[in-house]
Amino acid sequence: MATALIEYQDASPEVRAVYDDIMATRQTDWVNNFWKALARDPAALKRTWESIKQIMAPGTLDALTKEMIYLAVSVTNQCGYCIASHSAAARKKGMTEAMFAELMAVVGMANESNRLAAGYQVEIDQQFK
Amino acid sequence: MATALIEYQDASPEVRAVYDDIMATRQTDWVNNFWKALARDPAALKRTWESIKQIMAPGTLDALTKEMIYLAVSVTNQCGYCIASHSAAARKKGMTEAMFAELMAVVGMANESNRLAAGYQVEIDQQFK
Amino acid sequence: MATALIEYQDASPEVRAVYDDIMATRQTDWVNNFWKALARDPAALKRTWESIKQIMAPGTLDALTKEMIYLAVSVTNQCGYCIASHSAAARKKGMTEAMFAELMAVVGMANESNRLAAGYQVEIDQQFK
Amino acid sequence: MATALIEYQDASPEVRAVYDDIMATRQTDWVNNFWKALARDPAALKRTWESIKQIMAPGTLDALTKEMIYLAVSVTNQCGYCIASHSAAARKKGMTEAMFAELMAVVGMANESNRLAAGYQVEIDQQFK
Amino acid sequence: MATALIEYQDASPEVRAVYDDIMATRQTDWVNNFWKALARDPAALKRTWESIKQIMAPGTLDALTKEMIYLAVSVTNQCGYCIASHSAAARKKGMTEAMFAELMAVVGMANESNRLAAGYQVEIDQQFK
Amino acid sequence: MATALIEYQDASPEVRAVYDDIMATRQTDWVNNFWKALARDPAALKRTWESIKQIMAPGTLDALTKEMIYLAVSVTNQCGYCIASHSAAARKKGMTEAMFAELMAVVGMANESNRLAAGYQVEIDQQFK
Repeated sequence: MATALIEYQDASPEVRAVYDDIMATRQTDWVNNFWKALARDPAALKRTWESIKQIMAPGTLDALTKEMIYLAVSVTNQCGYCIASHSAAARKKGMTEAMFAELMAVVGMANESNRLAAGYQVEIDQQFK
Repeated sequence: MATALIEYQDASPEVRAVYDDIMATRQTDWVNNFWKALARDPAALKRTWESIKQIMAPGTLDALTKEMIYLAVSVTNQCGYCIASHSAAARKKGMTEAMFAELMAVVGMANESNRLAAGYQVEIDQQFK
Repeated sequence: MATALIEYQDASPEVRAVYDDIMATRQTDWVNNFWKALARDPAALKRTWESIKQIMAPGTLDALTKEMIYLAVSVTNQCGYCIASHSAAARKKGMTEAMFAELMAVVGMANESNRLAAGYQVEIDQQFK
Repeated sequence: MATALIEYQDASPEVRAVYDDIMATRQTDWVNNFWKALARDPAALKRTWESIKQIMAPGTLDALTKEMIYLAVSVTNQCGYCIASHSAAARKKGMTEAMFAELMAVVGMANESNRLAAGYQVEIDQQFK
Repeated sequence: MATALIEYQDASPEVRAVYDDIMATRQTDWVNNFWKALARDPAALKRTWESIKQIMAPGTLDALTKEMIYLAVSVTNQCGYCIASHSAAARKKGMTEAMFAELMAVVGMANESNRLAAGYQVEIDQQFK
Repeated sequence: MATALIEYQDASPEVRAVYDDIMATRQTDWVNNFWKALARDPAALKRTWESIKQIMAPGTLDALTKEMIYLAVSVTNQCGYCIASHSAAARKKGMTEAMFAELMAVVGMANESNRLAAGYQVEIDQQFK
């Protein structure tokens, strides 16, 4: 059963504060379902949002690169919700269709070669140790 | 049993041609074990190398970004060889320790939130469809 | 194509015997789709049910703890059917919303730290060997 | 800490009976570590062995095909022990180096295209429903 | 958002050539959605199709065995699209319901024993090194 | 290359404060390698430790149950370091060998049935929606 979502008007002040910060940080006027579900556990909502906010802020890697790495992991894990939401987020941050295609090609190839390395039981080169 | 590696001096002309192209493309004077193992199957060696060469060449994404995406996938899949070889490759292409730390933070968080989305059975927002 | 389900009235005596045991063991009057699909292979139905019945029976771990572990694995594997069925089963056995939230927090964090350990290539401490 | 292995001379009659059946079925004079570890839990040892014996016996699929499927799964899951033991088992049952190479090529490609299908969010064709 | 599919009548000559080869090779008069989505990136379409065509052609392993290995990987990865398309493909190549059931039993057991080996931290036998 | 570990005597005051809190919380006099590696990124060290400390504290689930769920996820993901460290942690918190065996049986079976549900393409029962 899909988790019942907590809408803004039904949310506690604590939850609303997180929703407000999500919208302010992302410069949007809505909150996506992931957060409305996680709001069932206000402590998890706050902890997860604050971690993501810190982690996804531009640093030595820019925001778009981080978003594409997030998407690469989500595709590898076959997480339907995450693929939908993070490909939308990456597009909003500037990922073009050409960039998405290149990202997918790398993700596909990495998943392939990961298994070739494992199946052939390749030993790690001295140079990589 | 680790696959017996095919060294340059023992390789067929067909395999040597791939090794030469790997070293020329990467501007190195050695070939890592992954390729020496895959050389047991010369057709797979050639096909895989040509695909990787094409996919990893700079395009709308630069070579370092591609390498970091490759590493993100390898970490998600727990592939020991791939983590060792692709973190070395990313460093060679300019990944600093700060960039690696940010990459790892994103990979960790994505793996966490992928499970939160799945476990809470979050439905995809209309805006993402 | 979803596997055609074998309903009780259409089932062979061998399959009915398993269905009867499932309902008696679980104290329900219906059988869920997983078993009706697996009934295409009566030997697998019987073997799988008998293994699950044995494994999930209370032992040094109680039935609810076992069900939550089952759910933790299903969430990690992104198995939609399994998440739906085992969160229902866990709730029936007494998992409250607060317990579910704590379970999910642990599952999320474990999936995150598993990748941090792999990506940082952390060596196993002598104390853990 | 690796699980302490239970050697034949130290095993209970119940465990010895399983070891004997493993050796008789496989026509070998030794038991591999997987079983000696699992013997810490005699009920699991017996249940797992009997399931594997039933599942891996030749049926409409021959023993070698089954062993290669087992190996394909183990490679996909990056299970080091399983890759080592099941590639040895498959070779014993007749897998040549050429067959192994073809198996690995299929496993690699399937892991790649699985992610392409997920990342491009491809909808299932009516013909496949 | 599901990737917009490129239909034959809207495709460039380069994409049509791949579609034509897919239909000719598979002796069908339609192309499934996977390729129509991948056609957003014509280079990836061509590269992926040529790799799959080469890899899936009968060799020392027959076409049906290869298709079943593909399916085993897809099931392990929980890829919904891939399970639907490759179980259809395997059936077309001759997989009976009995063969499918045996395949699934092996895939299930391999996924189980992979975790038993990892969790019990079983060391690789000398005989397998 | 394994990440260079930061020992207590070489650590900054910020890192030492986390190490001190880890030792105080766990009532030990040493810090395991995971944290010494993560200390390369002091912000990640602090964020991850505070999250884990909050998540793993006894709540409606006791500390041992949480630790076993952590282990179940680590086994499913084949994370060698995590299996070693969390099985040690669980034993310290009271997990007996019998409990470990039951945990492993559930983890193995869940991984098996997750693939049976996916491969048979079982539709979610109305009762679970």
